Amino acid sequence: MSRSRTKATFAAPIVEARKWLDGVAFPPDRPLINVSQAAPMETPPEALRRAMADFVLHRPEAHLYGPDLGMPDLRAALAGRTARIYGGAVAAAQVAITSGCNQAFAAAIAAIAGEGDAVILPTPWYFNHKMWLDMAGVEAVALPTGADLLPDPEQAAALITERTRAIALVTPNNPAGVEYPAELLRAFYDLAQARGIRLIVDETYRDFHSRPGAPHDLFTDPDWDRTLIHLYSFSKAYRLTGHRVGALLTSPALLAEVEKFIDTVTICPSQVGQFAALKGIETLDQWLAAERDEILGRRAAISQGVPVLAARGWALKGLGAYFAYLAHPYDMPADALARRLVSEAGVLLLPATMFVPQTDPTGARHLRVAFANLDRAGIATLFKRLSTLTI
Amino acid sequence: MSRSRTKATFAAPIVEARKWLDGVAFPPDRPLINVSQAAPMETPPEALRRAMADFVLHRPEAHLYGPDLGMPDLRAALAGRTARIYGGAVAAAQVAITSGCNQAFAAAIAAIAGEGDAVILPTPWYFNHKMWLDMAGVEAVALPTGADLLPDPEQAAALITERTRAIALVTPNNPAGVEYPAELLRAFYDLAQARGIRLIVDETYRDFHSRPGAPHDLFTDPDWDRTLIHLYSFSKAYRLTGHRVGALLTSPALLAEVEKFIDTVTICPSQVGQFAALKGIETLDQWLAAERDEILGRRAAISQGVPVLAARGWALKGLGAYFAYLAHPYDMPADALARRLVSEAGVLLLPATMFVPQTDPTGARHLRVAFANLDRAGIATLFKRLSTLTI
Repeated sequence: MSRSRTKATFAAPIVEARKWLDGVAFPPDRPLINVSQAAPMETPPEALRRAMADFVLHRPEAHLYGPDLGMPDLRAALAGRTARIYGGAVAAAQVAITSGCNQAFAAAIAAIAGEGDAVILPTPWYFNHKMWLDMAGVEAVALPTGADLLPDPEQAAALITERTRAIALVTPNNPAGVEYPAELLRAFYDLAQARGIRLIVDETYRDFHSRPGAPHDLFTDPDWDRTLIHLYSFSKAYRLTGHRVGALLTSPALLAEVEKFIDTVTICPSQVGQFAALKGIETLDQWLAAERDEILGRRAAISQGVPVLAARGWALKGLGAYFAYLAHPYDMPADALARRLVSEAGVLLLPATMFVPQTDPTGARHLRVAFANLDRAGIATLFKRLSTLTI
Repeated sequence: MSRSRTKATFAAPIVEARKWLDGVAFPPDRPLINVSQAAPMETPPEALRRAMADFVLHRPEAHLYGPDLGMPDLRAALAGRTARIYGGAVAAAQVAITSGCNQAFAAAIAAIAGEGDAVILPTPWYFNHKMWLDMAGVEAVALPTGADLLPDPEQAAALITERTRAIALVTPNNPAGVEYPAELLRAFYDLAQARGIRLIVDETYRDFHSRPGAPHDLFTDPDWDRTLIHLYSFSKAYRLTGHRVGALLTSPALLAEVEKFIDTVTICPSQVGQFAALKGIETLDQWLAAERDEILGRRAAISQGVPVLAARGWALKGLGAYFAYLAHPYDMPADALARRLVSEAGVLLLPATMFVPQTDPTGARHLRVAFANLDRAGIATLFKRLSTLTI
């Protein structure tokens, strides 16, 4: 039984953290603040919910298998939207729709790597990426980042071996929030291209990027699909986390490999979820722009509140998209602190021990806050609780 | 690139077969008969569709992440229904809801096996099981069946080595239709238990079993969850293929491993799909009984039509649930015949080359017909086309 793939990795952090709530009472005047998971708390806008209800009620295809790689209309719409945002040429045949963005990563890795291969991940890493690599028998090679939480292409180059199949980046970053500059992404792309490996860029939080315009110019390379594997999620943009819709953009040849994985694991994504994503692209641009403004406002509220925390010894290390990455001032490891925060502050968040290798001492110092779950009043309450801790 | 996991397996048969339709015209008086995939063609009943639409419109949780292992109410309801059907004790904590039954199989294998392990599959096998084992680096050890298409426990016992982690059965069988007798399942369970391996039983088509009563007595063993991994699908019962809802029943300890896989690949199943499955259990028993009668009627229509085919040299080898397994009379391999049937008969079905190892000569002789997609008139048309072939 020791060769179980799942036993090669750790328990899911979100699930583990939720167990810390067991047996803890949260009084009505101090309810739980849950910033452990990036998850919109509101429903999609009513017009979208109505369209979805109508689809379920009247359209037979809502209930039938769809194509493995997704609804043709949605693939075409996402290709068009991606080309509009980034420039360059993107065809429907370069788009696969997946059952959430985690599946997009899993399918990409299954398509390009096998037992004993390696993939380079900057640290702190997104825990589900690390978990999948563990389960896939692929070594996750840690690429430590510096004080700015940005990975260094030269350091990455030194880690590439004949076993390396890809470098996987997340921008805006989970867990650190930081947005990778376009030039940095270009440097990683050039490195991957020169070394004949893939560059996976997970842009789940792209719609909440703070800079206007394209986050990078990689799609303008006519051969982008030979090197780039771009991952996207509809969950955060249109508040569809319960429907599991993500996407993977790369070459049609690689998508033929991805298709085998999808066929075997889920057959096709949820039809209702795909319909909602399509309607989102078709009708929610303005709504999404307002959503972005709201999240950027929450981000500003974090920046504005930081001095209060800094006065108690905390430091803001990274901020962007859904996440703030904080250094705490206490003489205890972050995982122990996180557990105490549940009962002593009514706050659930994740310690950085969940985002770095066990040997990395930064894990003990940092905490991830999925601040975008909270409105500004909620953020103020969170900061008050953290700054008045008596530990 | 050669170590890609997906390149270790073949292209998805359903996807491959659909490509055979490219460029073929189907005249209005002879439309395509597609019996390549087991897929209900009708929508769920209107009351269920209305409830689903209402859920989407008014219930926030329809759009939010749910627990990795599924909605607690659905887990409890399926536990109760399973105990009612099979006897024995089944708890909600022994149930995981998955994004379709294929994911249940994939998660089970990830939880119990790793690189270089082995799982025994009777042949003909369900192609997605074989594909997942290939991608997982787990050897699929073929257990050939005899003329009755039933596997022999003694033969299986002889195939068990220290690398063997499980025997995986499908009953009613895909692709062969045959229903495994309760005593046969008990014999396999006893074998697995005695040898300290798992018995996976995929009962996707259980609701269309021809015999009344429990299909087996394995759940009546108080320790069933130490040996048995039971897989189930809501897709066929309630016509929910487009929503991806399946289930996996085993020990809570093994479900903690399954949870890691689900968290990393899809996070949670579709909430709308789970709601529909719950409503199905709560309200559709009578409707499902009528569905079963209808499918058994279609099965009877196959039996009745066989003499017409037999007169042309065809033979019915297996029949049950959604599938008929036919031996054809032509002097060509089944895969070549299947491709000719598209243009010459307007029929899409799968050749048994997709269900057996390349070295197994039975692949060339057999075809799988997903007959339950067709009503009785459709079955009559299918038989007419096959019996009037001029090849």
